[in-house]
Amino acid sequence: MRETLSEQGLDLLFRSARSQNGWLDRPVGDDTLRAVYDLVRWGPTSTNGCPARIVFLRSAEAKERLLPALAPGNVEKTLGAPVTAIVGYDADFHEQLPRLFPHNPGMRDWYATQPQATEIAALRNGSLQGGYFILAARALGLDCGPMSGFDHEMVDREFFGADGSFPGQRVRTNFLCNLGYGDLGKLFPRSPRLSFEESCTLL
Amino acid sequence: MRETLSEQGLDLLFRSARSQNGWLDRPVGDDTLRAVYDLVRWGPTSTNGCPARIVFLRSAEAKERLLPALAPGNVEKTLGAPVTAIVGYDADFHEQLPRLFPHNPGMRDWYATQPQATEIAALRNGSLQGGYFILAARALGLDCGPMSGFDHEMVDREFFGADGSFPGQRVRTNFLCNLGYGDLGKLFPRSPRLSFEESCTLL
Repeated sequence: MRETLSEQGLDLLFRSARSQNGWLDRPVGDDTLRAVYDLVRWGPTSTNGCPARIVFLRSAEAKERLLPALAPGNVEKTLGAPVTAIVGYDADFHEQLPRLFPHNPGMRDWYATQPQATEIAALRNGSLQGGYFILAARALGLDCGPMSGFDHEMVDREFFGADGSFPGQRVRTNFLCNLGYGDLGKLFPRSPRLSFEESCTLL
Repeated sequence: MRETLSEQGLDLLFRSARSQNGWLDRPVGDDTLRAVYDLVRWGPTSTNGCPARIVFLRSAEAKERLLPALAPGNVEKTLGAPVTAIVGYDADFHEQLPRLFPHNPGMRDWYATQPQATEIAALRNGSLQGGYFILAARALGLDCGPMSGFDHEMVDREFFGADGSFPGQRVRTNFLCNLGYGDLGKLFPRSPRLSFEESCTLL
């Protein structure tokens, strides 16, 4: 018999988990953030490119730098979250391939000659890792509040400039994700989802 | 005490799971494919847009239609897999928002006036759902073999044209993913990953 996740585990990751809008006053330790990444890192990416880059904003000072870029509706919940993650990706991820994909040294050069495909691959695989990130956080008992309502260029300039995080890399912001322990009283009703027949075809 | 996934569950989804290149002769039932989607559907997407669209290729005839688009190195493992999923996204996902995001009827029109942002949102959120898909399949005991080595336009034409799957939608192929039960004898050695310090910053 093949091993599968328990019903409780499926609930924790998928069926009962909700995007949170309010947060309990309970901190998230750095050890937990490290443990989340230690799961995320193993998820598959094309040519093992691992383009995701994450900045964890924990202090009030760090959050303050993010606020001007946020859509108004995202300010309060971001201020209330113990941690806000900026999930980005390195658009020049292929520069790491000689180390990450050592059995095929030609891949770095292939990407270098295909800038448009490389840009899309960075977004695709950085977002796949974003999906791993959300589920890894939930697996470790955290709640997530992913957000797309913000000015991407402002966040890029503020956090990924020459004197920011990951200097020498061309990191772009993908999405934001509040992390903590959700205040269930602030949940909205769950929105409907597409049925199998609407989203999938069997051939 | 907050609920977390068991160590066994973390291994199943992240730490021990490997992208497979060879497959055991063991079928994957339609009920399992439906169960995978029934998990994927609950994962969060921006404005609940749910852009992912999936075609499951089960028959030899369906696989045959995919083969001309594959990079040579992906042919044999695709032929050997019980199921190959074409994971795509609807670039006009916002047309579904009046139903999926009913509390904010203006969002459909916002996307309609921002074609570039909408294109990126479709790829971002379709890829997040791709991450949920890979981990949901693993949660149900399946192995995955995700692939990016193929001609996207050829697959789009063959499967998402006017007489293909999801007529009336503008579906684009994102990545392919073989599904089944892996032949561990055909695994490659695992490639290295970036450390926490290389991928993450704490502010």
